[in-house]
Amino acid sequence: MTSTSFRDATSVTCTDGRTWSSEIQPGWDIAGNANGGYLMAIGARALLAVTGRTDPTTVTAHFLAPGKPGPVAIAPTVIRSGRRFSTATGTLTGERGPVLALLGTFGSLPEHPDALYVDGGPPELPPPDECIGVQATDTFPPPFMGKVDLRINPTDAGFLGSSRSGIPRMTGWFRLLHGEEISAMALLCALDAFPPTVFNTDLPIAWTPTLELTAHIRARPCPGWLRGRFTTRFVTGGYLEADGELWDASGRLVAQSRQLALVPRT
Amino acid sequence: MTSTSFRDATSVTCTDGRTWSSEIQPGWDIAGNANGGYLMAIGARALLAVTGRTDPTTVTAHFLAPGKPGPVAIAPTVIRSGRRFSTATGTLTGERGPVLALLGTFGSLPEHPDALYVDGGPPELPPPDECIGVQATDTFPPPFMGKVDLRINPTDAGFLGSSRSGIPRMTGWFRLLHGEEISAMALLCALDAFPPTVFNTDLPIAWTPTLELTAHIRARPCPGWLRGRFTTRFVTGGYLEADGELWDASGRLVAQSRQLALVPRT
Repeated sequence: MTSTSFRDATSVTCTDGRTWSSEIQPGWDIAGNANGGYLMAIGARALLAVTGRTDPTTVTAHFLAPGKPGPVAIAPTVIRSGRRFSTATGTLTGERGPVLALLGTFGSLPEHPDALYVDGGPPELPPPDECIGVQATDTFPPPFMGKVDLRINPTDAGFLGSSRSGIPRMTGWFRLLHGEEISAMALLCALDAFPPTVFNTDLPIAWTPTLELTAHIRARPCPGWLRGRFTTRFVTGGYLEADGELWDASGRLVAQSRQLALVPRT
Repeated sequence: MTSTSFRDATSVTCTDGRTWSSEIQPGWDIAGNANGGYLMAIGARALLAVTGRTDPTTVTAHFLAPGKPGPVAIAPTVIRSGRRFSTATGTLTGERGPVLALLGTFGSLPEHPDALYVDGGPPELPPPDECIGVQATDTFPPPFMGKVDLRINPTDAGFLGSSRSGIPRMTGWFRLLHGEEISAMALLCALDAFPPTVFNTDLPIAWTPTLELTAHIRARPCPGWLRGRFTTRFVTGGYLEADGELWDASGRLVAQSRQLALVPRT
């Protein structure tokens, strides 16, 4: 049976006291390859488990090969465990070889996070019902969009039609299905859930395979929709970066991301 | 004898076909602890060596303990080697234990990097001689400043006197001493060479220990000064991020960085 919740679809089980097993579920894919943030969450859950900490603080993933549905395993190593943080590494490996290399530091998110300096705020968005819901199809939009509830700001949804804004930006709302609360781990998925920023430019770029993604988790989100903003400033030398921010329903920054993606040679 | 060039001060030697040794040189420190970017360069040189590639593409370091002058070693593992990229990991370990955990992907920088989309440019700066040279002292500014030539934009140099701008930003010029060219590896050092952005705010923050730093290398710099811009937007939940950009003398973006640093509880 296919798991329906994000929590179940990223669950990990320790089989031998050392190796953690999971299953890349069908349906979380883009053109047959599992969403990167979804894969990160599987790997990060195993890393978190071996550290014995409660939350991810910063996790970096290097994407080695596409993640195909099926069994995966990871045998994480704790590199150092200190007073406040533990750092662990591991490689999520599928039947065809390594999929994802991870390095993460785990700790405990603050119960009452302060805000000493905040430059900017969440993106201004029309209500979710006035944004553009992305419906999953077998091809594009991809099946993954059926696993999350993503509503793109109309300003940034031109790529779904024929009037691209020209600006490499995506903003919108994100939540999980069936009222599932967004855990700190689910933020990893949300940070990689939005369509590529460059889809809104006139650049001839049809896909942007991620080489590396780093997530910084600042706070556990309160219940409700997340607001996301993803922007790209530099498409140069065959690469582009995409910087992400996620804000919770209380208006608090809960996570940041930066990824380096390849610009395929056309 | 203390090495004077960056290249010598970050050299690594393979001792047994598996372990790479180096020496954290005195003088590259801030209050007795080696500069993080300098440490990253030592570790990344060992990772690069085992991959057999020519250049770093993206390197993430997690800072585990202060790097004290003295011998260090690292036994990198190649996780995957593909057609264009190799990914490797390793932990730089000193006499007192692990200092730095690294995960990096290495490839080959483009000879003629294109620029398909560029939003923004290098910071506007007065000529180097009209900027504020940071002189090394035993305490503050730290000894590390004697190893590089850093000239802070007067607008952002208020923290050296008594008139902070209130804006968490540092811009300025960077070069190595004695005309040493800035290699792709030296960019790792340059990305962590500027004083903390928050020194220009009124926040009661005297130091910001780095938890994690990710560098993206876009191009090999041409000879000459680099221009750097470092900004912080969010000091929340006990953390801050600092985003860095380095531009070469031809006006090309050569590297980006993001770090997550701790805001010590005061």
